[in-house]
Amino acid sequence: MIITLIEEATEAHLKKITDTLLEYGWKATHVQTQSARYLVGIAGKEIDIRSIGVLPGVLDVHRVTDVFKLVSATWKVKPTVINLGDGVSIGGGGHTLMAGPCSIESEEQVATTVDFLVSQGIRVMRGGVFKPRSSPYSFRGLGLEGLKMFARVARDKKIKIVTEVLDASQIAAMYDYVDMYQVGARNSQNFTLLDELGKVDKPVLLKRGISGTLEELLQSAEYIFSNGNEKILLCERGIRTFEKSYRNTLDLNAVPYLREKTHLPVVVDPSHGIGVRRFVPAMTLAGIMAGADASLLEIHQSPEHAVSDGAQTLSFSEAAQVARQVAALVALRESIG
Amino acid sequence: MIITLIEEATEAHLKKITDTLLEYGWKATHVQTQSARYLVGIAGKEIDIRSIGVLPGVLDVHRVTDVFKLVSATWKVKPTVINLGDGVSIGGGGHTLMAGPCSIESEEQVATTVDFLVSQGIRVMRGGVFKPRSSPYSFRGLGLEGLKMFARVARDKKIKIVTEVLDASQIAAMYDYVDMYQVGARNSQNFTLLDELGKVDKPVLLKRGISGTLEELLQSAEYIFSNGNEKILLCERGIRTFEKSYRNTLDLNAVPYLREKTHLPVVVDPSHGIGVRRFVPAMTLAGIMAGADASLLEIHQSPEHAVSDGAQTLSFSEAAQVARQVAALVALRESIG
Amino acid sequence: MIITLIEEATEAHLKKITDTLLEYGWKATHVQTQSARYLVGIAGKEIDIRSIGVLPGVLDVHRVTDVFKLVSATWKVKPTVINLGDGVSIGGGGHTLMAGPCSIESEEQVATTVDFLVSQGIRVMRGGVFKPRSSPYSFRGLGLEGLKMFARVARDKKIKIVTEVLDASQIAAMYDYVDMYQVGARNSQNFTLLDELGKVDKPVLLKRGISGTLEELLQSAEYIFSNGNEKILLCERGIRTFEKSYRNTLDLNAVPYLREKTHLPVVVDPSHGIGVRRFVPAMTLAGIMAGADASLLEIHQSPEHAVSDGAQTLSFSEAAQVARQVAALVALRESIG
Amino acid sequence: MIITLIEEATEAHLKKITDTLLEYGWKATHVQTQSARYLVGIAGKEIDIRSIGVLPGVLDVHRVTDVFKLVSATWKVKPTVINLGDGVSIGGGGHTLMAGPCSIESEEQVATTVDFLVSQGIRVMRGGVFKPRSSPYSFRGLGLEGLKMFARVARDKKIKIVTEVLDASQIAAMYDYVDMYQVGARNSQNFTLLDELGKVDKPVLLKRGISGTLEELLQSAEYIFSNGNEKILLCERGIRTFEKSYRNTLDLNAVPYLREKTHLPVVVDPSHGIGVRRFVPAMTLAGIMAGADASLLEIHQSPEHAVSDGAQTLSFSEAAQVARQVAALVALRESIG
Repeated sequence: MIITLIEEATEAHLKKITDTLLEYGWKATHVQTQSARYLVGIAGKEIDIRSIGVLPGVLDVHRVTDVFKLVSATWKVKPTVINLGDGVSIGGGGHTLMAGPCSIESEEQVATTVDFLVSQGIRVMRGGVFKPRSSPYSFRGLGLEGLKMFARVARDKKIKIVTEVLDASQIAAMYDYVDMYQVGARNSQNFTLLDELGKVDKPVLLKRGISGTLEELLQSAEYIFSNGNEKILLCERGIRTFEKSYRNTLDLNAVPYLREKTHLPVVVDPSHGIGVRRFVPAMTLAGIMAGADASLLEIHQSPEHAVSDGAQTLSFSEAAQVARQVAALVALRESIG
Repeated sequence: MIITLIEEATEAHLKKITDTLLEYGWKATHVQTQSARYLVGIAGKEIDIRSIGVLPGVLDVHRVTDVFKLVSATWKVKPTVINLGDGVSIGGGGHTLMAGPCSIESEEQVATTVDFLVSQGIRVMRGGVFKPRSSPYSFRGLGLEGLKMFARVARDKKIKIVTEVLDASQIAAMYDYVDMYQVGARNSQNFTLLDELGKVDKPVLLKRGISGTLEELLQSAEYIFSNGNEKILLCERGIRTFEKSYRNTLDLNAVPYLREKTHLPVVVDPSHGIGVRRFVPAMTLAGIMAGADASLLEIHQSPEHAVSDGAQTLSFSEAAQVARQVAALVALRESIG
Repeated sequence: MIITLIEEATEAHLKKITDTLLEYGWKATHVQTQSARYLVGIAGKEIDIRSIGVLPGVLDVHRVTDVFKLVSATWKVKPTVINLGDGVSIGGGGHTLMAGPCSIESEEQVATTVDFLVSQGIRVMRGGVFKPRSSPYSFRGLGLEGLKMFARVARDKKIKIVTEVLDASQIAAMYDYVDMYQVGARNSQNFTLLDELGKVDKPVLLKRGISGTLEELLQSAEYIFSNGNEKILLCERGIRTFEKSYRNTLDLNAVPYLREKTHLPVVVDPSHGIGVRRFVPAMTLAGIMAGADASLLEIHQSPEHAVSDGAQTLSFSEAAQVARQVAALVALRESIG
Repeated sequence: MIITLIEEATEAHLKKITDTLLEYGWKATHVQTQSARYLVGIAGKEIDIRSIGVLPGVLDVHRVTDVFKLVSATWKVKPTVINLGDGVSIGGGGHTLMAGPCSIESEEQVATTVDFLVSQGIRVMRGGVFKPRSSPYSFRGLGLEGLKMFARVARDKKIKIVTEVLDASQIAAMYDYVDMYQVGARNSQNFTLLDELGKVDKPVLLKRGISGTLEELLQSAEYIFSNGNEKILLCERGIRTFEKSYRNTLDLNAVPYLREKTHLPVVVDPSHGIGVRRFVPAMTLAGIMAGADASLLEIHQSPEHAVSDGAQTLSFSEAAQVARQVAALVALRESIG
């Protein structure tokens, strides 16, 4: 059950509502986000929600039977739009392309990529500076200094930045240089990280776990939301399966499912989702017809020389062709929808 | 290695080629299909294939390093087109819709479905009469009599029939009433069935195993081809994963991969692939952008009353809308390809 | 619901019982096995089973809520013992070792293996003559002639034979030469094969599907049982997982689970279950402590020269050591049980 | 390649070795653990390791082709023994039982459990105070205060404490109250946490990821080791599979595999590994025969009232019986090994 409180709700109001819920066996959690206040009720007996709706301090009440609550579309039917500023937004119609290299490598690389993005009208750039690697001996990214450089160059052209955060301890230092925090597949259930990202006022792009279920993904989003941050995007990036012909198996079934179950925007990462460069364009287009709000593409001025993930990275000319196809397809999607 | 023989190749020619291969450690299998004769060479030493190419009886020679051979696009670059007669074909461009109920239930049902298909310009009808069921106590289909009725009604309107064969012993009895045999996911490695379907001159729609890899699928197709039948279609129908929000996980990555690796047409079954009726249209469209040559849809005049698979079955009006969207999308796909 | 009928139950009795069930919405299937007659009731309303128990013709009635029925331990608590003759049996206490090569290769090989088994007191020999292979170009076994030779040599020393049947069409021809039919993992849901094995009076060793669930395994066993053959053994042989360090993942959890859910004996195949020769002994012993009634081992006089599966095959001296360890462990298991 | 340095190795020595390696394309990482100094060489050309062995500063050199290095048994053949003090150790022979509740709930609960452990001669107690939960609304443990209470009661009886750490920020505060840090399945690739645990001088029990491979597990251990901490235990706790009859699938294949590949001790967690109380004893015993160095059991004075994981938790009397069986089995294992 989700109870939205009026702005002026007092402690006395809260106590009365909480006590009433408790009578029926409901445990209430008070949630104060950056835009509203809620009480989330868990696991009680059947109850006529109107008896709660009439209490002072209550704006409205919804029954939510999903295990996730505040991220559920049962409660908030209207799609959430993530506004990144400067006219860049994700969700609520249309399709947003986000592109960039796997790893930030050099200022020259960032500048070249930014120029390419500008030429294509792409406004969001991805690029890792903290890289999760299976082996401790692999390249782990340029770190915070790399991020500062990335921000300096990109913001000069009003390009928005999305980059991965690996640990709660990095959030504050990264804050001034990111427009969107990315949580990677391996951290999809790093609850400390999720808790802390809930206390920040910047959007969070949350990737599905490597073998994670969608219910787990939505509950991880609930961690962020219930800590205060309503700006969340969910990203399908491929799951682990037995198929060894490609890196991961992009689960596009997740797209229509998530679009029904949650009000949060749904992003597809076809680069990790198939992991084979020449198949990425087809899977980007497939993701759009599945209903994706945005795509996250790995691109590089010279994929053969990328320090990581070159095998799944598009060249600029390939990316430009995808961008043209995406534009045509999104127009069609809207006309036949 | 694949050696295509000239039509007039003699036993003496064959012996000479086989002996030459043997010298280099290659084991040769003679394959006589309905359209040509081949020698398939397996597992020998590096060899200059021109030394085979010059032997009498040889039309051409190709090196094929895949574990599958005759179904490989390394050897036969040109896409295979499956011709079902009466101007109905699959593969080689465009997109073919195939639709029908999970189970054939009654003459009235078949007639109504046929009429709907005719109204939509859909020329291939699916419908099961032999149903594989996990439990022996479930409905197992109308059997051969049902198939005869299905054929009588459908052929009257020039609708082609695809239906599942469960066992090699059924092939002959079904022959006069089917236009395409379907091999289901549970039989994807029923090698006796595959061997015997290789001896028939009608197309075979081969579904991927429930947790089967694409290499296994292609090798199963190789069974059919190497027994003589070149008319094979490969079908992605969803794999088993941990995700319980839908019946299976439609692996659309398989589509661009298969289109690169094999000359055989690629079919997508979004009905089984997601198993949730209201998500089937999105996944059909996604499959088309992934590159599918055909889609296989479950439809029913009254999905709520279908004897099996109702939860994933489209109504006629839903199917008609999908057909319209498909037409628009296929046109776009060809224009931006 | 399972209704055991008295031997003398008449058609009139059956009709009365069936009609009574139908009133409550139960569909009854008449099952005549080689040892008894049953009515299996499916999917009706709550009913006091005593009202069925009092009908003429009824010996007893059990409520079975599992989706599988006649193989359920809810109904038949006493473990089934599979008697292979000559004092060889499986189930109901103790542990039976079965061993032999992956493929039958030659008379000399069979004779040598038989002599080894006799020296160890092992009474059941495995050995494939029909081999399921992913590729049509691989060795597919010596076939029926190989089986006849196998039987001639083994029976001379009273060694019982278990070998794989690939297709229903092979059952009759194999009948005189096998003591137990094996159904492989790829055929675990080959329902025609299961139906036909239900009509034979020899035991069937049914392997779990490559990614099959235990509920599916038990329902496949139900196919055999409901066609008349009560002599079934269930075999855990490893499932497909993401782990690539070994061939399959032996799921020993299945052993205590199956022993609780069914009255049928449970066999473990550690050779396929891990697929690495030097780890097979540890997994055999682990399987025994998990509760297995029997183990199925791949052994060969010279594993390095085996035509198939050499990598997971024990030498005779390794097998002899395992046999000694098994004997000590089974004694302990009984003393601490 | 692993180069063990002599204690007195100087910067000049290091430079010379590193430069020599670099000539052959090897990247060297300097590792200073709490007991020794190493250079780990990665990814260079074939090289005669004797040419490195003769350099000043080098104690010895080993070629290690595994992707993991310092945790490999290729390099260090002798099993690592984890010494917890007061005569409690894990690894190097025998079998150590560790037991306790899923969650620490109260002082009374801890005291009762400690008394039970003492009565059984069990010296290590598990108990969670920071609980990872899929939902933010679930009970998340008693936290640091709970840990302090746990330590006060347990240490009074010389019982060693193992408890889960969720985030690097908790390590320091927990330090005085734990004898072994546990890293849970969801954090198996939380590289920041692994890095930081590498800087502590207390043992780390590292659980395999929910769908993690063993190679990933060993590389995660390499993170800890290469940061300085050699005291690591690896724990198989069940993987996610399609089987829904139990919570996870305990992969006992991992035990002989890990015992061959690494010198670190191998722990089995049968409670999470099957998740069904009445099957836990069989799987504990199976784990021992697979070769486990230790078992981690969930026990509770009243499993029906446990705040978490009651369904997989043994009562004290069940645990006492398991302990007796374990003692008998370990004795046998040593006699037949």
